[in-house]
Amino acid sequence: MDSYDILKHIPLFEGLPRNHVEALAGCAVQKHYSSGQTIFTDTQEHRALYFVVWGRVKIYKASPEGREQTIFLFGPGEPFCLTALSDEFSPASAMALEDTRILMFPAEILEDVARKEPSLLFNMLLVMSRRLKESLVLIESLSLKEIPERLAAFLVHSLKQKKEPDLYDPGFSHRELAKILGATPETLSRVLRKLAAEGVLSVEGRKIRVHDHAALEELTRGS
Amino acid sequence: MDSYDILKHIPLFEGLPRNHVEALAGCAVQKHYSSGQTIFTDTQEHRALYFVVWGRVKIYKASPEGREQTIFLFGPGEPFCLTALSDEFSPASAMALEDTRILMFPAEILEDVARKEPSLLFNMLLVMSRRLKESLVLIESLSLKEIPERLAAFLVHSLKQKKEPDLYDPGFSHRELAKILGATPETLSRVLRKLAAEGVLSVEGRKIRVHDHAALEELTRGS
Repeated sequence: MDSYDILKHIPLFEGLPRNHVEALAGCAVQKHYSSGQTIFTDTQEHRALYFVVWGRVKIYKASPEGREQTIFLFGPGEPFCLTALSDEFSPASAMALEDTRILMFPAEILEDVARKEPSLLFNMLLVMSRRLKESLVLIESLSLKEIPERLAAFLVHSLKQKKEPDLYDPGFSHRELAKILGATPETLSRVLRKLAAEGVLSVEGRKIRVHDHAALEELTRGS
Repeated sequence: MDSYDILKHIPLFEGLPRNHVEALAGCAVQKHYSSGQTIFTDTQEHRALYFVVWGRVKIYKASPEGREQTIFLFGPGEPFCLTALSDEFSPASAMALEDTRILMFPAEILEDVARKEPSLLFNMLLVMSRRLKESLVLIESLSLKEIPERLAAFLVHSLKQKKEPDLYDPGFSHRELAKILGATPETLSRVLRKLAAEGVLSVEGRKIRVHDHAALEELTRGS
């Protein structure tokens, strides 16, 4: 698919005149990443804006000892590295979680179009606002919630967006899930075993099947 | 001071034509809060943008059990609740940390001016970008750093902005400082005592005096 066809369907560019979308598409580069491949790290200088064409990307921070905290998960159509407009370094790193195609273009091009088109700036502001809210939810979760609460909240939130309301299929390992929840893999296993023993859920390989939604909802409130 | 005089000196409105600043000032309301007073909570519906005129404001999340995590600290000239442009509820609560004067106006007025003035949207985007970066730093700190590392990073960062490079005077209690670091007051006391015993710093009431900057820098790297 050519870059213009991709960009015109991206919500961020809704309402943007065709010539501006074409200008952006003209500077866009498409790249392919396989599962587990790094897209960029927080130590590389790069002023670019990215979009997921297909696949999935995680935005994360890593400690010098190799521990990781996943901050965002992005799927098709979603932009990332919006802070490139103001900064030379991304505040976090990005990795493909499965076979992924991304589209990128230089931040200066975006800045150029954005200064002429308030609708794009406004859309960017809304996306940034949503990201800020999500990161505040994560801060709350990390500092004020225990692992079972975090897992319950994550499952309830994830299942709301699925067709099959009982089965959560992350498409990645429990080790990746632990990085989202800010838990060690061992703690996550222990919590999953406990909830399985209580009949709240069962684990089917990578998938988690919820049997008792009321108990899960209760857990999200820390009780 | 009248609202126009306040707004024209706020960096967010830099480059904005006088008539727009006047329009915003015309809708602005000034309010006074004493130390410890709640400005708004994350459960109240309110679509307004706020500025600190003088004093200091903390943005925080609280758990049902009354535990708190401070997310941002804002001083004179700084805007808060920028997500009001897209949401009816603030993602976090706000409290005055000392005697504080704030200026607020309805989010619709801001939206109205912002849609006409790309420079304002662009400034808002830069502020939002900075906030997002700060919240990612906090996420990293909460999930990947121990309390001594968090304290060291906080002190190094705070002292960089001060006239007296050895003395950190927060202007609030160690209990408030613990909420910023995501620590219990007991853990913070223990860490401060340990660092004092090692000659890295000393505690003078609410103030913290740094004796060994190299050791503090070392600590920020977790070593």
